[in-house]
Amino acid sequence: MAQESQRFFNENEQDVLEEILLHRRDVRGNHFKKDSISKEDIDRILQAGLSAPSVGFSQPWEFVLIHDQKTKQAVKASFQQENEKAVHEFTDVKKQEYIKLKLEGVTEAPLNMAVFYKPKNEPVLGQTSMPNMGKYSVVCAIQNMWLMARSLNIGMGWVSILDPEQVKKILNAPSENQLIGYLCFGYTNMFYNKPELEIKKWDYKKLQEEVVIQEKYS
Amino acid sequence: MAQESQRFFNENEQDVLEEILLHRRDVRGNHFKKDSISKEDIDRILQAGLSAPSVGFSQPWEFVLIHDQKTKQAVKASFQQENEKAVHEFTDVKKQEYIKLKLEGVTEAPLNMAVFYKPKNEPVLGQTSMPNMGKYSVVCAIQNMWLMARSLNIGMGWVSILDPEQVKKILNAPSENQLIGYLCFGYTNMFYNKPELEIKKWDYKKLQEEVVIQEKYS
Repeated sequence: MAQESQRFFNENEQDVLEEILLHRRDVRGNHFKKDSISKEDIDRILQAGLSAPSVGFSQPWEFVLIHDQKTKQAVKASFQQENEKAVHEFTDVKKQEYIKLKLEGVTEAPLNMAVFYKPKNEPVLGQTSMPNMGKYSVVCAIQNMWLMARSLNIGMGWVSILDPEQVKKILNAPSENQLIGYLCFGYTNMFYNKPELEIKKWDYKKLQEEVVIQEKYS
Repeated sequence: MAQESQRFFNENEQDVLEEILLHRRDVRGNHFKKDSISKEDIDRILQAGLSAPSVGFSQPWEFVLIHDQKTKQAVKASFQQENEKAVHEFTDVKKQEYIKLKLEGVTEAPLNMAVFYKPKNEPVLGQTSMPNMGKYSVVCAIQNMWLMARSLNIGMGWVSILDPEQVKKILNAPSENQLIGYLCFGYTNMFYNKPELEIKKWDYKKLQEEVVIQEKYS
């Protein structure tokens, strides 16, 4: 049957995926190299995004590729403003730890990418009862790109300490677009072997039994 | 440096990931086999979820594993109710196409999984300016599980034509939990080689140039 995929994955291939999942990190500006990313690698990352699942096959995504240093500086200014506000939400020890963290790599990363959700003007199959599904499809595209980047030994960081409306203004984005993720990509001088916030004891790694419930909540 | 990952992925490994991304499908009830999924495979899928990125390392996820047929039937009833409403949102040709589609596999799948976002009572690093980030972390976990399942040759379907509040009630979920995804897992008799909604011409596959913008919107 021509519509059927004959692809059966073997143990070795399962292990490769598992390793990519385990070695994916959020990379910040202190670990990006300046080398620009080749067009071939950017295309492979984008194609990974385009092969993500989307609710009702709506593919409700738009990807803005940013190399211009002026745009990055404007986005960085939004980060600084929002981060200044964020610091005050934490108290005592956490505040002291927070201040020490490098939380983005906007100007250091050779490539930035703003990823938008573009709503449709008509009903979307699968989105009629859960209106967030379109946004979630865009997140699936981001996660696919994150994994593809890691397999290409390219670091990615997701910057969320930003005012989405300011970013839209900087990029001239249509009013209906919603910013889902602002991503920084670059080759790196290292990947941590664990999440940086785990290494720095910001929080502990949860165990499977803490988050898995059998059948229903008691 | 002990905190550094020495893992460098090669071309062959990049191709494996690319193939898993390209061969991942949304699988519905007409293609699930009855065979139950081994504990080992369930654990590998869950571990893929647990290795997802999460905002501020908050790991704001809970996974409910459902084998009980009565629970599945109650969820299926919610689907039927919501789907009945959904049909009326589409007009003419689309409505006729919609009716013919098999859109879930709740009772046919040996394993169902409800995935929740559990908000914290304190500020979360990275979530102070973009409050949806916690939910997006849960979506990253779902996408990781979807890919791991596909590599294990296990089909997964994401059912979104559901009333989240009804599902919470069925599962006795705490009031603060928010349903992000309701997933069906099972071995399959086939995977389509393209998205089913593309094959059935519900919508066309977008090209890269339609969704990629250089530098900023004009």
